[in-house]
Amino acid sequence: MPMTLYDFLDSGNGYKIRLLLAQLQRPYRWVELDILKGATRTPEFLAKNPNGRIPTLELEDGAFLPESNAILWYLAEGTPFIPDDRLGRAQVLQWMFFEQYSHEPYVATPRFILKHLPEDSPRRAELPERLERGRAALGVMETHLSRRTFFVAERYTIADIALYAYTHVAHEAQLDLTPYPSVRAWLARVAAQPRYVPITYRPE
Amino acid sequence: MPMTLYDFLDSGNGYKIRLLLAQLQRPYRWVELDILKGATRTPEFLAKNPNGRIPTLELEDGAFLPESNAILWYLAEGTPFIPDDRLGRAQVLQWMFFEQYSHEPYVATPRFILKHLPEDSPRRAELPERLERGRAALGVMETHLSRRTFFVAERYTIADIALYAYTHVAHEAQLDLTPYPSVRAWLARVAAQPRYVPITYRPE
Repeated sequence: MPMTLYDFLDSGNGYKIRLLLAQLQRPYRWVELDILKGATRTPEFLAKNPNGRIPTLELEDGAFLPESNAILWYLAEGTPFIPDDRLGRAQVLQWMFFEQYSHEPYVATPRFILKHLPEDSPRRAELPERLERGRAALGVMETHLSRRTFFVAERYTIADIALYAYTHVAHEAQLDLTPYPSVRAWLARVAAQPRYVPITYRPE
Repeated sequence: MPMTLYDFLDSGNGYKIRLLLAQLQRPYRWVELDILKGATRTPEFLAKNPNGRIPTLELEDGAFLPESNAILWYLAEGTPFIPDDRLGRAQVLQWMFFEQYSHEPYVATPRFILKHLPEDSPRRAELPERLERGRAALGVMETHLSRRTFFVAERYTIADIALYAYTHVAHEAQLDLTPYPSVRAWLARVAAQPRYVPITYRPE
């Protein structure tokens, strides 16, 4: 059995896995679940991932692995997408934990509210504070990238994939990247990587 | 130079590192910063961690590593606290990303609001929704632990340390663990590990 990726096309977290799998040239089955219609909260899906979230990767042997950044690590171990040295590996994880704790709730969540919830959703009230924290996260990235080409070890790793996924669509969260020139230059470097695919990439 | 841990005694994220370092019997310097008085937002500390958070570990060579779970990984690589197999390592990361995304904001943050902010803080309004999500996280843990002794590979790993840190003080966040018997049994197993130290443990 090839691997199966349970995903939602517009999810940046799912896109992380589609991008890495394309760059690794690994074949896989792709199953889209409509998270807007509760497809990740059915008993059938909760048996795969009790936390009820995509992406979830079903491995060749039938085991299920959720959490986008843990899936990236699983797929990238032993490849050039993770550094060889102990500190480099820890720094990749540092930026992936930064992404999930200090970036994703403040970039991905506003984008989700704006793109997928009705205009009169009460969740729109969350936007000002979330976007303020989103700008703080972008500021941390700008400081780091002002003297570097990529997040870790001066080369493209899964830390870049993890942070690229929602940063490159930050405008859809009403976040303007004009004040972050180093971030914009880094986005262009990521998009120029071999076998890059866009977030709209839907596997066969 | 020994390692230096920048920390705040009541932080569960900092406690993760103190617990692992005690269990690894590694010597280190310990520097407490008063996060309530802005000690992590000074220019001096922001030069160490531009994201302005503890814990941050200063390594022997002077490099700085932030993000509690990345520090756990750095310290535990090559020890029995991380599994040897690829899937086991990814599952440790799965639960550490679950901790930071689905647990910490809904267990640690309510605890912080209740313990450290004034009684009339407007942030108290966040409590009902945060605690509802905290109970959801505890429910996911209960389901997983109902058939297991530890989170991954049936042995004590840094995934257990990461989730123990705030779960064992969940009552300080007004979260009642009575409905989660498997979680309570697991807490007791963690507290019975060799060289365990409590969250109040202050290094010399």
